[in-house]
Amino acid sequence: MPTQPVLIAGRWREARASGTFKAVNPRTKKELAEDYPISSWQDLDEALDAGVEAYRVMRTLPAQTLANFLDIYAGKIQANLQKLAEVADEETALGVTPRFTNGEIPRTINQLQQAAAAARDGSWAMPTIDTGTGLRSMLRPLGVVCVFGPNNFPFAYNGVAGGDFASAIAAGNPVIAKGHPSHPKTSQMLAELAFEAVKETGLPESAVQFFQRSSRDDGTKLMADHRNAALGFTGSRGAGMALKKACDDNGKLAYLEMSSINPVVLLPGVLDEKLNDIVDQFVGSCLLGCGQFCTNPGLVLGLKSDGLESFITAVAKKFDEKPGGTLLNEAGQKSLSQGIQSIMAAGAAQVTTGQAGAGFSVANTLLRIDGKAFLKNPEQCQTEAFGNSSLVVVADDLDQLLAIVRTLEGNLTGCVYSAADGSDDETYAAIEPDLSDRVGRLLNDKMPTGVAVVASQNHGGPYPSTGHPGFTAVGFPAALRRFAKLTCYDNVRPERLPELLQNENPGTAWRWIDGEVTQDAVPTPVATTA
Amino acid sequence: MPTQPVLIAGRWREARASGTFKAVNPRTKKELAEDYPISSWQDLDEALDAGVEAYRVMRTLPAQTLANFLDIYAGKIQANLQKLAEVADEETALGVTPRFTNGEIPRTINQLQQAAAAARDGSWAMPTIDTGTGLRSMLRPLGVVCVFGPNNFPFAYNGVAGGDFASAIAAGNPVIAKGHPSHPKTSQMLAELAFEAVKETGLPESAVQFFQRSSRDDGTKLMADHRNAALGFTGSRGAGMALKKACDDNGKLAYLEMSSINPVVLLPGVLDEKLNDIVDQFVGSCLLGCGQFCTNPGLVLGLKSDGLESFITAVAKKFDEKPGGTLLNEAGQKSLSQGIQSIMAAGAAQVTTGQAGAGFSVANTLLRIDGKAFLKNPEQCQTEAFGNSSLVVVADDLDQLLAIVRTLEGNLTGCVYSAADGSDDETYAAIEPDLSDRVGRLLNDKMPTGVAVVASQNHGGPYPSTGHPGFTAVGFPAALRRFAKLTCYDNVRPERLPELLQNENPGTAWRWIDGEVTQDAVPTPVATTA
Repeated sequence: MPTQPVLIAGRWREARASGTFKAVNPRTKKELAEDYPISSWQDLDEALDAGVEAYRVMRTLPAQTLANFLDIYAGKIQANLQKLAEVADEETALGVTPRFTNGEIPRTINQLQQAAAAARDGSWAMPTIDTGTGLRSMLRPLGVVCVFGPNNFPFAYNGVAGGDFASAIAAGNPVIAKGHPSHPKTSQMLAELAFEAVKETGLPESAVQFFQRSSRDDGTKLMADHRNAALGFTGSRGAGMALKKACDDNGKLAYLEMSSINPVVLLPGVLDEKLNDIVDQFVGSCLLGCGQFCTNPGLVLGLKSDGLESFITAVAKKFDEKPGGTLLNEAGQKSLSQGIQSIMAAGAAQVTTGQAGAGFSVANTLLRIDGKAFLKNPEQCQTEAFGNSSLVVVADDLDQLLAIVRTLEGNLTGCVYSAADGSDDETYAAIEPDLSDRVGRLLNDKMPTGVAVVASQNHGGPYPSTGHPGFTAVGFPAALRRFAKLTCYDNVRPERLPELLQNENPGTAWRWIDGEVTQDAVPTPVATTA
Repeated sequence: MPTQPVLIAGRWREARASGTFKAVNPRTKKELAEDYPISSWQDLDEALDAGVEAYRVMRTLPAQTLANFLDIYAGKIQANLQKLAEVADEETALGVTPRFTNGEIPRTINQLQQAAAAARDGSWAMPTIDTGTGLRSMLRPLGVVCVFGPNNFPFAYNGVAGGDFASAIAAGNPVIAKGHPSHPKTSQMLAELAFEAVKETGLPESAVQFFQRSSRDDGTKLMADHRNAALGFTGSRGAGMALKKACDDNGKLAYLEMSSINPVVLLPGVLDEKLNDIVDQFVGSCLLGCGQFCTNPGLVLGLKSDGLESFITAVAKKFDEKPGGTLLNEAGQKSLSQGIQSIMAAGAAQVTTGQAGAGFSVANTLLRIDGKAFLKNPEQCQTEAFGNSSLVVVADDLDQLLAIVRTLEGNLTGCVYSAADGSDDETYAAIEPDLSDRVGRLLNDKMPTGVAVVASQNHGGPYPSTGHPGFTAVGFPAALRRFAKLTCYDNVRPERLPELLQNENPGTAWRWIDGEVTQDAVPTPVATTA
């Protein structure tokens, strides 16, 4: 069987490959049939040249064309939903239903449609007009954007279909998408649908390019290249940091979502009020998708109490009731086991005694450690054990709890459960400022998994959960602003201005005009008569 | 005479100095009297600790308090305007009037007041509310911000008074400000006024800290430190890149304004239409402040023509009429001379034959090179010769001109002069996309010096003119957004939300509520009766 192709410079063609790989069915641990290419630099080099040419056309296109592409692509995913779900399930074991057919694929379609709406509307670009000086500014596209997707979301974060992809295109940038070796067939099918949509909507043919893999060196070379403008990355901290460095050193923008253990603080009062509810919510959140979510609650903080002991006992019991789920791949199983071992080496004890399940699997694991031991080695205790595992820290008192919170690295989310009767309010007030400083999304009385795609979402957070705490990877129109540069037009003749900065509002964009935010046209100056 | 003090941890005290330095009067080249300290790491270490403590208080303060500080500080600068102008003139030779009394100090006061207004208003934080999911998000302060000011703006970009300082404070962050050895007394006086305002308005005493200098190693150590959150920097590319690297490698935000040669494209038609006007505008812009502006027009691009030759001849004549002005310091004189030599080594010829003036000075210098020679070594031809110097590139034809534009590095500004009669329109259309991609502010028929402080300004641009092309260092409220992180509140109880995210709008903030931008309260849900 010939090696599967790559999509470069407007055509599907054989890769200039330096090697090949196969996907693996995580349930059976058996290799799947197809051979996929590991692209050499030649492929990436050609993609960069073609991307630059595509950009020169894209920056002149009306937003309507970008939006049409996203909508038509979304429609094609909808039309192929069942087939895509089956292929992805074979590659990831995440389950056709409900995960793909009811959850992730509809979300992916919705994201593409929301990005299309944001492009059409134009408010994302923050058009700003000062009539006194004539200065007018807005966000404009950047250039070639590379998007690297993760293993755990074959659709919603896929390099050629997910939120970064949708945002980069909606903002007017061509994308060079990298697949992920955990789900190459899913990615390739998506890239095929995307390319069909490109051709149908009149985007330049290299607006979307796709390769499966490269060497790590070629990946960093791609970032450093002068033809690359930015990276959208979701994945491991190790890979993210290497790519970030290559971007940073060469003045390229890197938007990375790298790692997060999502601390959950359980205050004493609420454990008394509704222990069982919290146990159920925690177990559901921690084992969902076998724990392979960026927002998985990997760290629980509480004060020494009977309530917290009951929580630990009850969670351990539920964890032990079922064997571990099937993880995405062998690397994931290995890294989860290593993460657990690293946390135990830092002094944590294993509370659970359950079994691993079918395929790549690790037993559902609950660890515990006391506050003093945590504080001896807070960094190692925060090792990300990506999967169905969590660590409970039992603090002696509020001072110690606060000290622990102050050692936390940047996370995507942080939760506090507190009593409805107000008995935890003082403790909440003491902890909230330092916790919220260290997270992108602060929750009350709710587990962190589940990321609503709405304008006020923040799927981001302080370093090292991401590379810049001012931006979100989820939520439109904000997510578009990552892949843009600010351009000010000073004394530029009216007919030469971008449509969104002309006097008439071409559509529904909210524009900042002389300090007011309005959808109206620029007011006509009142003529002063002599 | 004892060494001058530093402002650390809420008091003016002797520095733990590793050495001292004196300022120099650029007109006389004579050292001024005072000894200023070069702080050792001990000073910076103590400042970081105090800054963290100040931040813990500042994040809880109402915006009104931050705004009051900025307004009261602005008032103190106003009250000391004449004295400040005289001190700064002695240190910089930029001139008491008009530069300081009519230009830079009023601008600085205005910036502080605009930042105060932005803090009070709150729109800068982009409060965003989705009533369906209950998610509410806004920008929040970051932590300790270090601000390093440049040599060329002792007020408007001063680390303890300029736009970065005002933005960081208005967004709720304490500042550790570094002075500049070119104007230590000016900076110290400003820091004294700032500290008085801190005490009068109830900011934590370490909200503003100030040191004059450190070793370069301690400067990068300051960036890398876990207690630092971000850098606002204006200065040379060399220093900026070293600080950027230290920030990048440690996940700190670096907003840098580093270098720019501000290309001006003169099309043939407009040279025929109004040669003399353009010559006057160019000479005025290029020699203003002895050319020591980040937006100084250091590169002119044109097509081979009689008009362009006349431009070169006329500019050279005007340049030669007067001796060069006085530069800020010896380092500036040396770096300007080296820059000119570097450009000449790349093939440029000197057109001017004038003389240097008093003090630190270089003759007004116009260089020329043909397009072919420029393209042989575009990087070296773009050496920043910071001061009263510019290079004219004479291109053979439009294709060559476009090729030259495509070699340009990121710049703060780019201008195109074109004929009013439409004869240059085709050429404009061919050049504009690639030029505007490489600049932060695109001008028509106007020189780039003069940066209006309005909401639609962009004083920023693609790398390496800055570190991130999405942000501006000038213009409120946008400049505040650099020193902030996005925080989403998910299911957080209403009384625990920041005031700007509660149902009632506490003031005049524009908020994104369910896709509308409004100053109204969150609409009350209509009760559904059974």
